[in-house]
Amino acid sequence: MRAASLRTTFKSFNAPSISSRGFAAKSSPQALQYTQHGAPKSVLKLENVELPKLKDDQVLVKMVAAPINPADINMIEGVYGKKAQLPAIGGNEGVGIVVEAGPKSSFKPNQHVIPSVAGLGTWRTHGVFQHSDLLAVPEGIKPEYAATVSVNPATALRLLNDFADLKQGDYIIQNGANSAVGFAVIQLAKARGIKTINIVRNRNNYEEVHERLTRVGGDVVVTDEYLEGAQFKRLLLDLPQQPKLALDCVGGKSATGIARTLAPNGTLVTYGGMSRKPAVVPTSLFIFKNIQHKGFWLTKWNEENPDKRQQSMDELFKLISQDKLKIWAEKRHLHEWAEAVEHSQAAYRDRKIVLSFE
Amino acid sequence: MRAASLRTTFKSFNAPSISSRGFAAKSSPQALQYTQHGAPKSVLKLENVELPKLKDDQVLVKMVAAPINPADINMIEGVYGKKAQLPAIGGNEGVGIVVEAGPKSSFKPNQHVIPSVAGLGTWRTHGVFQHSDLLAVPEGIKPEYAATVSVNPATALRLLNDFADLKQGDYIIQNGANSAVGFAVIQLAKARGIKTINIVRNRNNYEEVHERLTRVGGDVVVTDEYLEGAQFKRLLLDLPQQPKLALDCVGGKSATGIARTLAPNGTLVTYGGMSRKPAVVPTSLFIFKNIQHKGFWLTKWNEENPDKRQQSMDELFKLISQDKLKIWAEKRHLHEWAEAVEHSQAAYRDRKIVLSFE
Repeated sequence: MRAASLRTTFKSFNAPSISSRGFAAKSSPQALQYTQHGAPKSVLKLENVELPKLKDDQVLVKMVAAPINPADINMIEGVYGKKAQLPAIGGNEGVGIVVEAGPKSSFKPNQHVIPSVAGLGTWRTHGVFQHSDLLAVPEGIKPEYAATVSVNPATALRLLNDFADLKQGDYIIQNGANSAVGFAVIQLAKARGIKTINIVRNRNNYEEVHERLTRVGGDVVVTDEYLEGAQFKRLLLDLPQQPKLALDCVGGKSATGIARTLAPNGTLVTYGGMSRKPAVVPTSLFIFKNIQHKGFWLTKWNEENPDKRQQSMDELFKLISQDKLKIWAEKRHLHEWAEAVEHSQAAYRDRKIVLSFE
Repeated sequence: MRAASLRTTFKSFNAPSISSRGFAAKSSPQALQYTQHGAPKSVLKLENVELPKLKDDQVLVKMVAAPINPADINMIEGVYGKKAQLPAIGGNEGVGIVVEAGPKSSFKPNQHVIPSVAGLGTWRTHGVFQHSDLLAVPEGIKPEYAATVSVNPATALRLLNDFADLKQGDYIIQNGANSAVGFAVIQLAKARGIKTINIVRNRNNYEEVHERLTRVGGDVVVTDEYLEGAQFKRLLLDLPQQPKLALDCVGGKSATGIARTLAPNGTLVTYGGMSRKPAVVPTSLFIFKNIQHKGFWLTKWNEENPDKRQQSMDELFKLISQDKLKIWAEKRHLHEWAEAVEHSQAAYRDRKIVLSFE
């Protein structure tokens, strides 16, 4: 896997093949819907849908691309912190192109937009959304980047901004470093001169993962088994300072391992629980080292910070346009959704699958 | 156990029977020393000691009373966050009477003083201490109160002050509610109109514990078994609001139980680990409810807040003088130290043992 392959190219898309007034599409709009919770492959159905009449503060969007994120799967299964109102359309992230905007919306036709909140249902060819639920995408951002920037890289940005006062040369540590969030954390940290210690599960293709994370700027990349050993302790002792921040998307013993490396007054932030086990943090770390353990959920942050969402995205778009933030994605056509959903849940995979609607 | 018995009376003490100049005591000063870490009963020895010559910024103190706290035991065992320099004298808390103060100290003979920091070694008949390591005790505070206020009630005060913005009518929840800290938390909360939900381990004398905690103001007192059940869930639902703060000195499942009751954005504070198991907090509480988990250690707080220590104590002394803060103690003479130390470690005991030096 070479650097060039990181930039999966999408078919460039043209102006939508639908008339903007009255909305008459060439083919009927479709959506991946579910009427009950369960295994995505069983409950999702690709169906023809009717679009509602556009209201003054609404925007008609033709979707271009939308990723399959773990939270999308959990939401369909009904095990997520946010329950969808059924029937619902899958997907929480994606990029679309404005076909028509109501008079109270400032969006213009052909402008690219992404959701600013969770729960819009992005796995569909067309949608009518509230103006306030969309954010503008600057020109020149490729669709696969725009489609995948608002959840995982946005989470990475908040994790780095909101939990520690990180300065150039400071260290952070993270587990699940090959996840989409972890991959973004490495690059955002690198752009600021923050050093990263990256833990990944041991696996068949470990060398490849090591190479990929190192190539985008990971300073230390080791397996979770290495984290437990004496060599890692020596590695830590050789660092000029201990990590101020530990980012956990795994839980269980992996969280224990990264929490133990924290400097006094350091913070452990849990933003996922891939092992399905709670993070175990020894009592002595809380009492004697004053470690804090917090959680982060972008959905809630977005709801509570409507005024900061565009700014957060602009920071990421800028890094993308400077080639400092890459994503690691592959494309599947909407009609291949069943295989794509199954593929996205395979063990040890970390290449994001993006559904394409064109 | 009736209310009156809470106020164990100590022999009133007179001016010290030692001359303040040149220091010639009737009997030789003694101290409970240890030269190696281990079981207190094995490593502690009551020995005659020489007192150093008083320096200008030092104070000669005749000790009156000093409690046996769990942290004292752990420090002797060598399993505490702070290691004593050996040989060391046991005890971190206590009250004494000033015999002589160096010219750079503002303390006056006969004034009562307590340590402002940990590690002074209070299990001794006399000591020469730095002026800055002592705090003044107002007149009229009984020695058993002065001797036991600076660790457990001081911890309770910081737990209530520093981790949540608690207003009258707010709820908090705590486990180990019959511990010395827990007993103080109930009373300090009561004095401010804050409601307490108090969890204690089930035990033979549960009725007695329930009565004692309720009598000093505990709003709800239940066992840890009750905490797990459906009735407790209903009790919580009937409250006007969920707790903002959960105080944990037990860890393990007990911490899980109280963390689950927290309102969104609530804080769990661990200040002890009596079960010797780490607190288990489900991932979903961190991510979806934004619960925070922090630790507290008074020793560190004292070191970092020298300017606030006297103020913290004055707040407690005021409550004591208003009869709003009681302690639950019994006295043993220094010569009974071996039995007292053993007794202090017995399971299910929560009456503080205070060594008396007179």
